[in-house]
Parts: sequence; C-alpha cells; structure tokens
Amino acid sequence: MAKDFYTREENYSKWYNDIVLKADLAESSAVRGCMVIKPYGYAIWEKMQSALDKMFKDTGHSNAYFPIFIPKSFLNKEADHVEGFAKECAVVTHYRLKKDPSGKGIVVDDTACLEEELVVRPTSETIIWDTYRKWIQSYRDLPILVNQWANVVRWEMRTRLFLRTAEFLWQEGHTAHATKEEAVEETIKMLDVYTEFAEKHMAIPVIKGLKSENERFAGALETYCIEALMQDGKALQAGTSHFLGQNFAKAFDVKYSSKEGKIEYVWATSWGVSTRLVGALIMAHSDDNGLVLPPKLAPIQVVIVPIYKSRQEFEQVCEKAREIKKGLEDRNICVKLDDRDTHKPGWKFNEYEFKGVPVRIAIGMRDLKNKTVEIARRDTLEKTTFQEADIVNKIEHLLEAIQDNLYQKALSFRENNTTKADTWEDFKDILDNQGGFIYAHWDGTVETEQKIKEETKATIRCIPSDNKKEKGECIYSGKPSDQRVIFARAY
Amino acid sequence: MAKDFYTREENYSKWYNDIVLKADLAESSAVRGCMVIKPYGYAIWEKMQSALDKMFKDTGHSNAYFPIFIPKSFLNKEADHVEGFAKECAVVTHYRLKKDPSGKGIVVDDTACLEEELVVRPTSETIIWDTYRKWIQSYRDLPILVNQWANVVRWEMRTRLFLRTAEFLWQEGHTAHATKEEAVEETIKMLDVYTEFAEKHMAIPVIKGLKSENERFAGALETYCIEALMQDGKALQAGTSHFLGQNFAKAFDVKYSSKEGKIEYVWATSWGVSTRLVGALIMAHSDDNGLVLPPKLAPIQVVIVPIYKSRQEFEQVCEKAREIKKGLEDRNICVKLDDRDTHKPGWKFNEYEFKGVPVRIAIGMRDLKNKTVEIARRDTLEKTTFQEADIVNKIEHLLEAIQDNLYQKALSFRENNTTKADTWEDFKDILDNQGGFIYAHWDGTVETEQKIKEETKATIRCIPSDNKKEKGECIYSGKPSDQRVIFARAY
Repeated sequence: MAKDFYTREENYSKWYNDIVLKADLAESSAVRGCMVIKPYGYAIWEKMQSALDKMFKDTGHSNAYFPIFIPKSFLNKEADHVEGFAKECAVVTHYRLKKDPSGKGIVVDDTACLEEELVVRPTSETIIWDTYRKWIQSYRDLPILVNQWANVVRWEMRTRLFLRTAEFLWQEGHTAHATKEEAVEETIKMLDVYTEFAEKHMAIPVIKGLKSENERFAGALETYCIEALMQDGKALQAGTSHFLGQNFAKAFDVKYSSKEGKIEYVWATSWGVSTRLVGALIMAHSDDNGLVLPPKLAPIQVVIVPIYKSRQEFEQVCEKAREIKKGLEDRNICVKLDDRDTHKPGWKFNEYEFKGVPVRIAIGMRDLKNKTVEIARRDTLEKTTFQEADIVNKIEHLLEAIQDNLYQKALSFRENNTTKADTWEDFKDILDNQGGFIYAHWDGTVETEQKIKEETKATIRCIPSDNKKEKGECIYSGKPSDQRVIFARAY
Repeated sequence: MAKDFYTREENYSKWYNDIVLKADLAESSAVRGCMVIKPYGYAIWEKMQSALDKMFKDTGHSNAYFPIFIPKSFLNKEADHVEGFAKECAVVTHYRLKKDPSGKGIVVDDTACLEEELVVRPTSETIIWDTYRKWIQSYRDLPILVNQWANVVRWEMRTRLFLRTAEFLWQEGHTAHATKEEAVEETIKMLDVYTEFAEKHMAIPVIKGLKSENERFAGALETYCIEALMQDGKALQAGTSHFLGQNFAKAFDVKYSSKEGKIEYVWATSWGVSTRLVGALIMAHSDDNGLVLPPKLAPIQVVIVPIYKSRQEFEQVCEKAREIKKGLEDRNICVKLDDRDTHKPGWKFNEYEFKGVPVRIAIGMRDLKNKTVEIARRDTLEKTTFQEADIVNKIEHLLEAIQDNLYQKALSFRENNTTKADTWEDFKDILDNQGGFIYAHWDGTVETEQKIKEETKATIRCIPSDNKKEKGECIYSGKPSDQRVIFARAY
C-alpha cells in the first residue's frame, strides 16, 4: 500500500492528497469545493471537538445554535465585514422548486422568490449580534460566553481537502463584555486555549501573535493567531481570536446600562478553529509511509493483530488479545482488535501503518509461550518485544512517549527552519530554497507588506506575542523598524 | 415568575410557547422560520446527542459528514423523493454579492450565477447515495453503517419553535446492505434504539409501528415510526426509520458484486430524529409551573441554594454545599451551586422550578445544626427533609425515582387517553372532546385516510408493530377491515 503513493520529496502536494484519500479521511463531492468527510477522518474531528469543547466549558462557555442563514442586509451593517465576505457568499434567492413546464426535470419556481436574499453564513457575527441585542440590557446580563459548532460556507475558488473548502465545519465563539479590558482578556484567554490544544493534543508547536492590519479579520480591531509550520516549510494559521471592539455592537445597536447607570456599547470577541486543523495535523506529522497521528487524537490508539496458522491458534491468540484489549479499554484507551480472517497480518500491518495508528501489537503462538507481545510504534517505526507483565502500564507510557516525541520532532523541525533575514536578497533566497519562518524587520506599513506579498507570496504570519524590541531596517523599504516580525509563505 | 404565563388549560399553545421563551430554551430569529437555540435549550439537545450517539456507536455505526448542498438534478433522480421535497427547498442560485451600483447597500452579483442551482439539504439521501457509489464495489464493502449530525432546511410555511422550523438540527443515519433482509433488520433495529431512547432517557412512552402509505417518507418502501402522546391529546412523531429498498441505489446506480459474483443493487435504510424531540420533551412532562425535565436529559440535575443571613452564615452554608456538590459530581451528577448574592433564595427557587431542574437542595443554618438538608423534587413539587448522612446515595436514588415517575405519569396519561371508536360519530366526538390515540378500523385505502384527514384533521399515526388482527368495519367507509390502526390529530 505504501508503495503506490507520492513521497514528500517527489511532490508534497500530491503526497498530502494521497494521504487524505488513501487513509480514508475525506474526498471531493459532486458539489464543487465541498468535501465528504469519511468516517475515519470525521473520527479525528470528533476527538478534536471533544477536547476543545471540554476546554471551552472549563473556561465558562456554553454552546448555542444560531441560524445558518443571514439576511443580506445584515452583512452590510459593518463596513469592513461586508468588504471581507461579500465576494464569497452562497446566496439563497428562492424557496421552492417545481416541475419544468416543458416536462423534464425540475426548475426554480420564480413565484417563490425571497423578498430579501439570504446568505449562507460565512461566519456568524452579524446574526449573533442581532440576537444579542435582545439578550443584553444591563451589566447583569454580561458577560455572554457562547460558542457554536457549525458548518459555514465561503465560496473559495481554489479548494483543497480540509485546508480550504467551500463548506467547512468549525466552532465559533462569540462573547459580549462590559469593558474593553475584559474583552481583550477573553481574546487572549482563548488564544491560550488554542495554543494548549495545538501543543498538547495535536503535538504541534505554534507561535502566538498578532496579525498585521493586512491579515486582520474583516470587522476586528485586532486579530490574534497561532501559526504552525508544515513539513514543506509553509506556515499554516491554526486558529484565530479576534478583539472586535464595539464594531458589531454599534452596527447592531447593542447597548447596556452600566453599574453607574450609564448607557454604553458592548465589547465583543470572536474566535474559531475549523476542520482545517485536520489538514494541519496530517501535514505536521505524516511521513512517506502514510498518516502519523498523535495518540490523543487517534481514533484507534492501539491495534492488535493476531498471528496464527490454524483455527485453534486463532482462538488461543485472540483470547490473549481480548484480555489485553480489556485492560487497555479500562484505561480509556481506544483499541481495535482486528480479528478478520479475510486479510493477512502483513496486509493489516500496512493498513494500520498507513492510517497512522500509534501503536500496533502483534501476538502469535511464540508470544503466548514466551509471555511477550510484539510492539511497533508508528512514529519511529521501531519494533520491540515487550514482556506481557504490566503490559497495560507499558502501553500507556508508550502512548505518552509517542505524543511527546511527535511534539519534540515538530519543534526541532520548526527550530531548524526558522531563520533571520537581514537583506532583501537573503529573504528571497531563504524563501525559495529553504522556506520556514523568517524573522525580518518591517516598516509597519500595509503598503510594504502588500509589495512583499506580491513579489514573493510571503506574508506576515504574526507579530509574536513575546517579541523582543530590536532596532533595524525594513527588509524591503529600508525604513526604520523596531522589531522583527515573522514572514512565511502560507496555506 | 410562574404567575405571568399561560396555564395548559387556558391556552395550551401559548403555554408551550411561554415555556420555550421564559425557560430560555429558544427564540425566533430575524430569519423567517429559523430559531436561535439558547444555551439552556442547546444543553438539552447536547444531552440527547450524547446518549443517542453512544447508542449508534454501540450498534456499530460511525459518524461522517456530507455536503450541505445538493445539486438540483440529484433531487430529481428519485421520483417520489423530488415530489416530497421540491416544494420546500431553499435554493442557492449565486455565489457572490457586490456593492449596489447605485451606491447604497449590496446586491447579488448577476455575473456569479451557478450553472446548476444548489439546494440546501432537506435530507441527504441523494448526495449520500451519489457518494456511496464510489465506496461500494463488492459485498466486502457492505454493510456501510454511517450517521451524520447536521442541520437541514425545509421551507415550512407555519413554524413553531422546536416543533417545526425552517432549519433544524438532526441526525440522519444512512446504511447500505447486501440483502433486503439485512436492511429491514437494520430499519427495525434503529426503531428499537429510538424507542429505548424515548422511553429510558426522555421518559416518554411511545408506540412503535408502520406508517400508512400516505404518511410514508418520500422515497421509502416502508416508514417505521415511534409515536408519542402530548398532554393536549395530540400525537407527535418522535422518530422515523425508513426501509428504502433499492430506490436510491437504482437512482444513483449503486451496485455490488455478491459473493456469488452476481451484480446486484444495494439495499438502503435511513433514520432520523431532530431537535423536534426537545419540543416533545417539553410538551410531555411540563406543568403549569413551567418546564419539567427528566433527570437523564436535564443540563442541571441538582441545584443547591444556600440560605443565609450574614456573610459568616453564607461561608458556613456554602462549605457544606460544596462538600455535597463534590460528592454528587463524583457520581457524574450535574450540580449547580447557586451562590450568587444578587438574588434571594425565593427568586432562585422560582427560577429553577420554572427551568425544570429535577432536584433542589436548600441548606440553611438550621440544617447545619440538625445535619439535614431540604429537598424539593420538581415532578411532584414535594418538599422533604433528608438526613445529611448518605446524602449522595439518597439523591442518586431520588433522581432515578423522578425519572421513573415521569415515565409512569406519561404512561398513565396515554392509557387514559387511548380509546376505541367503532362509529364515525364516536370517532369525531372523541377527537373533538377528548383527543388522544383512537384505535379504529380502516379499510386500508389512501382515499379513505385522506377523506378522514380532510374532515377531521386526524391522520393514521401508525399501524402498531404488535397489532392484533381483528375483524371489523372501516370507521369511515364501512368496508371490511382486519385490524385497528391508531388515529390522532398530530403535531
């Protein structure tokens, strides 16, 4: 199985696509730009959802659900917002089909035309702030800490499975606060939640920072983000948290009376991550043998493959396998015992290797005799023989070691692919020959950033949160700069 | 709080609406027919999802995700299906907005017109079977047991919160099988899952049965359903499971090669329940004091309200409250300690009573002295004093008793509101003056059912699965009948 697909070096983009398709994660659908997320890929998303949802609830948030449709006029209420989203909206204009009068097929019923067109939500700030107006009168109604798990649609012209699709799944948090300070604090708190999720669950190190004006969310005063580095040296924005100021409160007239009895506009944040994270996960860890999953997000954490010749051997080996499975499941480890007799062990080994199952246990008659099991770890492809005694503890520790190793590996990769550039020539050279994150001085203007983007396709990924001030000259304009920012080509 | 809303007798419909709004479950949005599900209402749906999802997985199903859009032509591939859904489809015709050339507002960009219109899914059989064609070649690829949690849109003209909305949330299972027998077995298995969920989790007794042709899902050979009775004597369909035969396999050309090497069409089922169940839950159990929730689906199962006069008393009482809370949480019971000092205990009592929290614990200084707590159960509104010793076990048993009591109460109600009618006069009289389920003979024809519906608004809810054969004469036509079926007016 591992032989008929591209390696990273041959063609990174095809390698990615092969993994998505051949590991049964997702595929294109009959609808342009929309994907089908297959059960194995969806199971990864469910693991992500479950971990994130717990983190949101632990930080005081509740889930709710708002309509998928947004009246066209709502989008237009916040000037930057409409500018950012109008060009990629799916628009519902009618609410009925009818038989084609000519006899064949069905057509849109022209008599069922909506008075006002509805947009399929590209994001929900507008419909949510129209709702919050009814929920908020006094400071006692604040804060509102709400999250929504939903599908959204942005009519992208060039799509790639998970990374950029017309429809995608995501969560969007939308909070309302009495003060600016509280809203900023929330924005940063959720950025920290995303950071923890990326590093602890996805095993992907990220850089936290602030977006430049150019890359800011349409309607935000500040956009914070986490940026990850993929194995081809391109950056991927893995989550954003926006400080929206009072923009949406003003657009939708959401005011509250303060403790002091003053009428004030409400302060807002929004923050989201999407199924794009599945794409990031694939590109951060996988190798030329297929998918590699960190144990915390693997739908199957351990697979057990019985090795046998006769029916009798099969029964004996499976008995031991079930015993080990039970022990692992009691520790909440997801185990699959593949006892199908339609496939040979070697075929199964390839299958689970390609699908990125972190730990494979093989048990044969010799193992029964020796009280051992054969262990293969997916991250290093190492095989070892474990004594069966205390096997559950050993596997539990192994899963932790794999999770940690994947993180360390990704971290080393990032460190080895982060450079400083001090001249324009160096900058272009690094971009073309090495990629990765480039720390470089920038004069702080939108114009310069745009020119750099036009000439090199690199953008400012972020101004890191813990950035050191340092005097220098803009890599492009030569104008004075007081800090380096991170440039990269990005997904 | 309980005073400014309608009782069931005054106006059942307004009573329902008052509960939905005033218990903060949901509200109408700016988009016609679409609701906002508020955090408290959404938390009930999350509990439903979590229980159902586990049951689906325990019966071998996996989740996946298919596009929200369906090409118009797909709907037209199955004749009954298009007939059933074409009249209520939201249709996407364009993919871009632009500034109004006249200068104000935004308009649809006519140059961004889709070649083929897309329908927002009213249900996903078509897009899923178009996908399954790619997944299925051989009998080894079967069965496919997939479920999807998603939003769907049916452009209903008359909408009611939870019960009938243009957009709603649901799950839709779509399975593919090699044989008819296996597909029928799956259809019935999932009906049993829904039955168990309704009775064990929602505490609502339901009648399992088969729909008449008139009420069948558009595209199914048979529709099985569970029917519940609401407190106003109207029926509510709480879940459906469809045996689709080979209709969709034929429409989308999905064939497999059997073990014997023959090429055959694949057999299908689909089954779903929706946020409508939240409406059923409200209408089955709630009373003139507000919402009543069965413990298994209550977002807050136990609320603790401290009673105190001074700051010192507050601290002492809360210490005990936290101790009890911890004990209950260790048993996975959802507890809220309402230690807000902005509201008086009496206000809190009303609030949680209205919101249907199954058990309320009040703790004051006298309780501390006597080692007691005051318990109020929402279902019976009874108050008792419990000795604090062994309190966690006692509360756990109380929650079970409440769950059981709600079920028994609903069952008695149904039994008291199920009658037989043998004449057309009786039938109409029962419908107008008592309501409920009416067992009556029917001649088995679509025409008779339609006439009964036109004249009385009653429909056949189902032909019960365990129905006894009995000779009789059709209540309407007088023609011979060999069994009674269940009629009712329905939501």
